[in-house]
Amino acid sequence: MTLILALDFGGTKLAAALVNAGSREWLGYERRLSPVKANAETDLEMMRSLIHSLLGGRKPGAIGVSFGGPVDAMIGKVRLSHHVPGWENIPLRDLLAQEFGVPVSVDNDANVAALGEHRFGAGERFDSLFYITVSTGVGGGWILNGQPWRGAGGMAGEIGHMVVDHKGPMCLCGKRGCVERLASGPYMARDVREVLENEPPLSPRFQPGGSQEGRGEVLRGLVGGDLGLITGKVVSEAAAAGDELAVEFLARAGWALGMGIGNVANLVNPQRFVLGGSVMKAGERLWDVVRKVARETALPEVSYEIVPAALGDDAPLWGAVALALDTISC
Amino acid sequence: MTLILALDFGGTKLAAALVNAGSREWLGYERRLSPVKANAETDLEMMRSLIHSLLGGRKPGAIGVSFGGPVDAMIGKVRLSHHVPGWENIPLRDLLAQEFGVPVSVDNDANVAALGEHRFGAGERFDSLFYITVSTGVGGGWILNGQPWRGAGGMAGEIGHMVVDHKGPMCLCGKRGCVERLASGPYMARDVREVLENEPPLSPRFQPGGSQEGRGEVLRGLVGGDLGLITGKVVSEAAAAGDELAVEFLARAGWALGMGIGNVANLVNPQRFVLGGSVMKAGERLWDVVRKVARETALPEVSYEIVPAALGDDAPLWGAVALALDTISC
Repeated sequence: MTLILALDFGGTKLAAALVNAGSREWLGYERRLSPVKANAETDLEMMRSLIHSLLGGRKPGAIGVSFGGPVDAMIGKVRLSHHVPGWENIPLRDLLAQEFGVPVSVDNDANVAALGEHRFGAGERFDSLFYITVSTGVGGGWILNGQPWRGAGGMAGEIGHMVVDHKGPMCLCGKRGCVERLASGPYMARDVREVLENEPPLSPRFQPGGSQEGRGEVLRGLVGGDLGLITGKVVSEAAAAGDELAVEFLARAGWALGMGIGNVANLVNPQRFVLGGSVMKAGERLWDVVRKVARETALPEVSYEIVPAALGDDAPLWGAVALALDTISC
Repeated sequence: MTLILALDFGGTKLAAALVNAGSREWLGYERRLSPVKANAETDLEMMRSLIHSLLGGRKPGAIGVSFGGPVDAMIGKVRLSHHVPGWENIPLRDLLAQEFGVPVSVDNDANVAALGEHRFGAGERFDSLFYITVSTGVGGGWILNGQPWRGAGGMAGEIGHMVVDHKGPMCLCGKRGCVERLASGPYMARDVREVLENEPPLSPRFQPGGSQEGRGEVLRGLVGGDLGLITGKVVSEAAAAGDELAVEFLARAGWALGMGIGNVANLVNPQRFVLGGSVMKAGERLWDVVRKVARETALPEVSYEIVPAALGDDAPLWGAVALALDTISC
C-alpha cells in the first residue's frame, strides 16, 4: 500500500495528513496554528515535527503540498507568502524531495483546493469547474478539461481582483471595487466598523422596548461595544440575527461575488462553480444573493451550477493528495 | 495534394476559399454580400455557387466552416443566427458532409477566428490566447493548452457581455454597461448620435474662424448633417480628426475593453490577447487607452501582451482551414 503525505502551509495554520493511495479516509491528521512571529524557517520546523509524528518512521510514496501564496508550480518554488516572511524563492519541492527522497508536487492553495474538490469533493465527475474561496482573501482555481489550468504565468484564478464596481472602495491592490474588496471577511468587517464608528450607538430611550434590533445594534452587542473585535464572522452572525447593517454589507458581498461569477460564466463557461471559505458559511441569505446576481449577469444561454465546497478546510489537503498521486501515476 | 475548402457564413457576407493543405496562399477566394432579405436557404444557395465556382469540378479533402452565430460545435449544428432568419437548428455539418462526401467541421466565428490567429496569425507559437473581435458586436474565442476552449456548453468567450460599468447604459441583453454596450461600433454610433441630437449644431458665428473643430462638428461634417448616417467608422474617423465628442466615446470604448481584458488576464492568465474587428482599426489613440486600462486592471504580477490580429477579415477562413485540417489529421 502506497502512503501519500499531504501538507498544507496555510499562512496562519499548518496541517499534514496521511492516507493510503486510493482511500478516502485519513490514516492520520495533524493541525497547528502558526506562532504569531512565524517565518519560513519556523513554519518548516513545525511542519517537520507534524510529519515525523504522522509517519512514525514509515516512508511515504509521494508528497503533495498546498501553499498559501503564489507558487511556480512547474518547478515547485514558492514566490512569496503574504502572511509569513522569509518564503521568498524557497525551492519547497526540491527541499522536501531531498529530505524525504520521494516525488513531491507543490502548488498554491486555490489551485490545490480546486483539484481536491474536483477529485474528491463537489466537483467529482465535472470536467470543468471554478473553485472560489471567500475568506481572508478571495481566490480561485480552475479545472478545465479535467486538468488544473494555472495560466501562462501560473497566475490564473484571481477572481478576487476582478473589478465589479469601478467607483467602489479602494482595494489594497490599488484598484476600486474588486471582488475581494467587497466580499472578503476582513474588508467587510472594516467597512461595517467604519459605519458604526460614525454612527453613535442609540441611547436606550431611543431603542424601542430597549431591544437590540436597530441598524448595527446586534453588531455592537456581539462585540460588547468594542468595535475592534468585529470580524467577517461577527458580521455573518449579526446578519443571521437580522441586523440591518450587517445584512446590507453581506448583501453587497453577495452582489460582488454574483457579478464576478456571472462574468466568469460568460467568459469561460465552466460546468460548476464550487464555493468555499469562511464567508460562505454565512447562510442561505448570502447564497441567495450570489445565485440571483450571477443568474442576472450570465447570459440566459449560459448554464452552470453554484454549489458549496464539500471538503471544507480539508480541500487543500485532499488536493495535495491528488497532486502527490499524479506524481507517481504519470 | 489535399485541397481544403474554407467557408465563412458571416451574417452580412459570405466567403469561401480554397487552399492546398500546408500552404499559406489561397488557390481561390470568393466573397459576396448577403442580399438584404437573406435567409438560411438563400445563404446556402449563394454559398453553393461560390463553392462550385471555386472547385470547378475538383473534390476537397475536407471542409471547415465558420458560422456567425451560436453553434453546437460537437455536432456541427447551428443554433441560430442573430442576423439571418431560418438558421435555427440547421445541421450544417451533416448537410455539407452529405453533399460533398468529405469530413466537415463547423464552429462559431469567434472560436474559428481564434484558431485561425493561433495557427496562422498573431497567435502562432502561443499556447494560450484570447482572441477578441470588436465590430458590430464584441465576441471572443479561447485557445488554452494549444486547443480551442469552447466551454462546457459551447458558450465560452462572451467578453462582450462582461459587465464593466454596472450603472452604465442598458444593453440589449438586459444588463447595464456590458463591454459590447460600450465598445461595439453600432452602440458607439448610437450614443454619439443621441448626444448630437440633443445639442443643436453651433451657428457659424460661434464657430471660431468658422472652423469645424467644435465638439461634434467634425462628426456632423462627415455625415453632411444627417446624423442617421453616423456609424462606428464615422466616429473613428472623427476621433482621428480630433473631434472631442468622438474622442470621448472612443476613449470610453477603450476603457471598457481595457477593463475587460485586465479582468480576463487576472482570471485566466493567457499569454496573448489578439484584437481584431473594424473598431480596432480606429488608430493608436484607442489602442493606447486599451493597453493603459488593461495594465491598471490586471495585477502587476500578471504578464500578457495585447497585439493586433494579423489575418484581418480572413481570420475565420484561416481558422476554418485549421478546423478542416484537424478533421483529417485526427
